[in-house]
Amino acid sequence: MAEPASELRRNVTSVRITAVHDGIRSERPDTVATEEPMEIRVGGPGQDAQAVAVTMRTPGGDYELAAGFLFTEGLVGPDEVRRVAYCDDLGDDEQRYNVVTVTLGRTFDHEVLRRNFFATSSCGICGKAALDDVEVRCAPVAAGTQVSISVVASLPDALRAKQRVFDRTGGLHAAGLFTPAGELVTLREDVGRHNAVDKVIGERLLAGDLPLADRVLQVSGRASFEIVQKAAVAGIPIVSAVSAPSSLAVDAAERFGMTLVGFVRDGRCNVYTHPERVVG
Amino acid sequence: MAEPASELRRNVTSVRITAVHDGIRSERPDTVATEEPMEIRVGGPGQDAQAVAVTMRTPGGDYELAAGFLFTEGLVGPDEVRRVAYCDDLGDDEQRYNVVTVTLGRTFDHEVLRRNFFATSSCGICGKAALDDVEVRCAPVAAGTQVSISVVASLPDALRAKQRVFDRTGGLHAAGLFTPAGELVTLREDVGRHNAVDKVIGERLLAGDLPLADRVLQVSGRASFEIVQKAAVAGIPIVSAVSAPSSLAVDAAERFGMTLVGFVRDGRCNVYTHPERVVG
Repeated sequence: MAEPASELRRNVTSVRITAVHDGIRSERPDTVATEEPMEIRVGGPGQDAQAVAVTMRTPGGDYELAAGFLFTEGLVGPDEVRRVAYCDDLGDDEQRYNVVTVTLGRTFDHEVLRRNFFATSSCGICGKAALDDVEVRCAPVAAGTQVSISVVASLPDALRAKQRVFDRTGGLHAAGLFTPAGELVTLREDVGRHNAVDKVIGERLLAGDLPLADRVLQVSGRASFEIVQKAAVAGIPIVSAVSAPSSLAVDAAERFGMTLVGFVRDGRCNVYTHPERVVG
Repeated sequence: MAEPASELRRNVTSVRITAVHDGIRSERPDTVATEEPMEIRVGGPGQDAQAVAVTMRTPGGDYELAAGFLFTEGLVGPDEVRRVAYCDDLGDDEQRYNVVTVTLGRTFDHEVLRRNFFATSSCGICGKAALDDVEVRCAPVAAGTQVSISVVASLPDALRAKQRVFDRTGGLHAAGLFTPAGELVTLREDVGRHNAVDKVIGERLLAGDLPLADRVLQVSGRASFEIVQKAAVAGIPIVSAVSAPSSLAVDAAERFGMTLVGFVRDGRCNVYTHPERVVG
């Protein structure tokens, strides 16, 4: 299920800018991170694939993003993906590479999307209801995994050192999956921080490596509920963010038995939940 | 349409953390930015309100967020909102303050949401199609508005100086609307950067002050397509971001006649589109 390479799937885009420095203007070429919409379609054996979501993303890791998104949002199980492909019936190449079709080993119930939305509305809308909703599809988080403080402190630099698109554009989210010893397993970049996490988890899903019971997820920015939710569904026991977590990220990590670390910088970090996994 | 105050609508949440500094652990209280789901319902005269979206947001500015979201996503016009209120028929206060109902002066066609989604799928999915879709609902961007380089350079600090929730939590997105002279009109903070922009635009909508033809929008992070789209719908001619824009943000700003500035820091900035509005 390897993605075909294409000039249209470039992750950086050339632009011309007017740079201003101390009041002096100069025109020069520059590069920015590519952002393009991507539609995810799902179908089963003998079933026409239908759109389930459109997300703005940075091209590259599209198959991983599609598989990861469907899995972390609870729409497909970890072993259900049979095939991932760009859309064959769109003539225009630019559009073709923005539509990814995921074929499952079973028929997909498209009505579930509509029902899910209205179920949320009727059962109540609050942090607790959101946590209840996610809890049913979380993998059990392994209690045994531990990571040393020195490894935690090293992860932001280890992540940054491998951010190839950030190097060329000066700004992009990243998510990296590491072993407890600090070795990088998978790193992905994206204009959307949730996409970077979905790509990392999707890469592991397509490799048949879920749940991620003995792994640490490092993210480049803040930790929101969405990030913790996605990590929890994949069974990741430790999530570390360069910056601040939100209240619901903390509540979710507490509930799902996950260790949540934030503000990892300058020899400091804050452990918000389950500090027993951070040792040394 | 003032929002009622409530302890349940607090924008920061107290937590207990394990702080680690140079290997020394200490337990202490801390505060994080509140993140809670909010459901937006829309109805018209004599029409039951139905849910159109659920967004994770930081409480505060909820009415503005609901109005701003509906407007910038093209679901309601600038003069159509008649009433905004928390949900009256939810007994539980925590849930009540997470459901905002917007009543329009006309009947709302809920099928439009479903049709819009499938229209996107059939007409093609690429950056150009996304721009075409947004263009039809953009206010004309004023050509005359100009801002000096010194004002542009001052906006990130002016924004940061007024970020009350950031002060207490160390991490939160902000959007600020300024006059071309650099005077702050409206500032809002949120865990979601798009929400911060929707709150600012919604505040102006509820004040009857759209389009925002003579204003500069400063955002705390990066500039994505979504940010530029929302600003364009509100007619804002100049958008400035502390960090990098994406390719589609640049394309959108170019197409909509908007000046897009990025990397505003240390006496430098990059002007990506329509540099004629940045003077001096």
